[in-house]
Amino acid sequence: HPEPEPAPRSLAHRCQHRSATMLDVPFLPFCAFLGTLGLLCLAMVGSWCQHWRGGFSLDGSSQTFNWHPVLMVAGLVVLYGAAALVYRIPNTWSGPKLPWKLLHGGLALGAFVLTVLGLAAVFRFHNSQGTPNMYSLHSWMGLATVLLFSCQWAAGFGAFLLPWAPTWLRALYKPIHVFFGSTILMLSVASCVSGINEKLFFSLKNGTTQYKLLPAEAVFANTLGLLILVFGVLVVAALARPSWKRPDSNSQDSRQVRDTLGGDL
Amino acid sequence: HPEPEPAPRSLAHRCQHRSATMLDVPFLPFCAFLGTLGLLCLAMVGSWCQHWRGGFSLDGSSQTFNWHPVLMVAGLVVLYGAAALVYRIPNTWSGPKLPWKLLHGGLALGAFVLTVLGLAAVFRFHNSQGTPNMYSLHSWMGLATVLLFSCQWAAGFGAFLLPWAPTWLRALYKPIHVFFGSTILMLSVASCVSGINEKLFFSLKNGTTQYKLLPAEAVFANTLGLLILVFGVLVVAALARPSWKRPDSNSQDSRQVRDTLGGDL
Repeated sequence: HPEPEPAPRSLAHRCQHRSATMLDVPFLPFCAFLGTLGLLCLAMVGSWCQHWRGGFSLDGSSQTFNWHPVLMVAGLVVLYGAAALVYRIPNTWSGPKLPWKLLHGGLALGAFVLTVLGLAAVFRFHNSQGTPNMYSLHSWMGLATVLLFSCQWAAGFGAFLLPWAPTWLRALYKPIHVFFGSTILMLSVASCVSGINEKLFFSLKNGTTQYKLLPAEAVFANTLGLLILVFGVLVVAALARPSWKRPDSNSQDSRQVRDTLGGDL
Repeated sequence: HPEPEPAPRSLAHRCQHRSATMLDVPFLPFCAFLGTLGLLCLAMVGSWCQHWRGGFSLDGSSQTFNWHPVLMVAGLVVLYGAAALVYRIPNTWSGPKLPWKLLHGGLALGAFVLTVLGLAAVFRFHNSQGTPNMYSLHSWMGLATVLLFSCQWAAGFGAFLLPWAPTWLRALYKPIHVFFGSTILMLSVASCVSGINEKLFFSLKNGTTQYKLLPAEAVFANTLGLLILVFGVLVVAALARPSWKRPDSNSQDSRQVRDTLGGDL
């Protein structure tokens, strides 16, 4: 790669630097905003199911189904997003890594447990209603997402938490883990949106509450879908932002492997 | 940022380097694969509409609607993806930039025109059937995607093709343009998937062809949805891969602006 010439520190450069500095956002306030947005999504999916869809139960009825959206948004979006962002906290950049690895892996495990419970809710609902499982594109994409997530967790545990994993394996696998970290979140968000869309077509069919007449529930749940999208895009953007990455993640070695293997998304 | 220490060229390092080299993929063959996958998605969405959904017409019937999925996949996914990847072609890294800018902007404009025609198809269908427009989450997300795309095209034209745009504005806006380039593609793909899911629930309701009985059409269109997802993820991954970016895109100036503003996704 040819070295670029140093740019002259012109007026244009100073203007650009000043505008860029004005637009700079520190990580922790951004995280507080993301946390608020994530909690808002959770509160909204809970309120939707409680207020319009009859609340929650474990009896196999549609109130059992209602655990599905709540647990999926909680696990595969909000808690997953929190787990993904752990290494962007500047405190994780120095000192012992193990506590942060345990936090990252623990949050991801919590996200995975909620996700599996969310799948159990929809399977129990379908089975008790005699509805087939796994026919819609939503279900195919969602299951693919959960399977990728389980591989990601197991491979991450094997490569980064087992003390005997060799350093070269960690260096080789890390960019792959980082890439799939963002990809799985994008797939989760796409699954949530298609699921909310599908659920509204299922539920809003009669009289004045038809989906196409855009009753209050439809506006509320559509807004929830858009907020989940915004949450996912902002987490992926935060993960990709170079100045929020651990500085040594750009070291010659890991960069070389990353360049060769396909980059961190 | 502290400078990392140079790593010793140990056995581990050599192993890692060898494995990384083995897994290296050059850009152009990867592009050929992506092009094939994009054409496969196009052929599949066309076959779906032709073989199972009654083909194409302009009379306002469901055959008019059929232009919607075909034009959206062609414009907002395949041609958009091609436009996004132009600057990853090594030939664009030296020599005059203007022809490549015109190619990038021209492909994006073509994608935008197909997208607008795709919207026109669904609006004409709804209007001639007396169905309201813009009520589903799919439509909200899809329209938000198209609006973002129109802003992206107009801002890109203003900043990069108008000769009097100042250099500092270009440097400031470039990382934002790159970030929204990937984001819009992810939103397009999520919109396509929710749209295919919705269309299958609309169309497959009767007798032995109910969606939940997973007839051939459902398997075919679900597979199409997954292939569109794979295409989108691979384009975003190719865009993010550091070794496929123009080397001088890492120069001090643009990196500084990028770091400050939020990185290239």
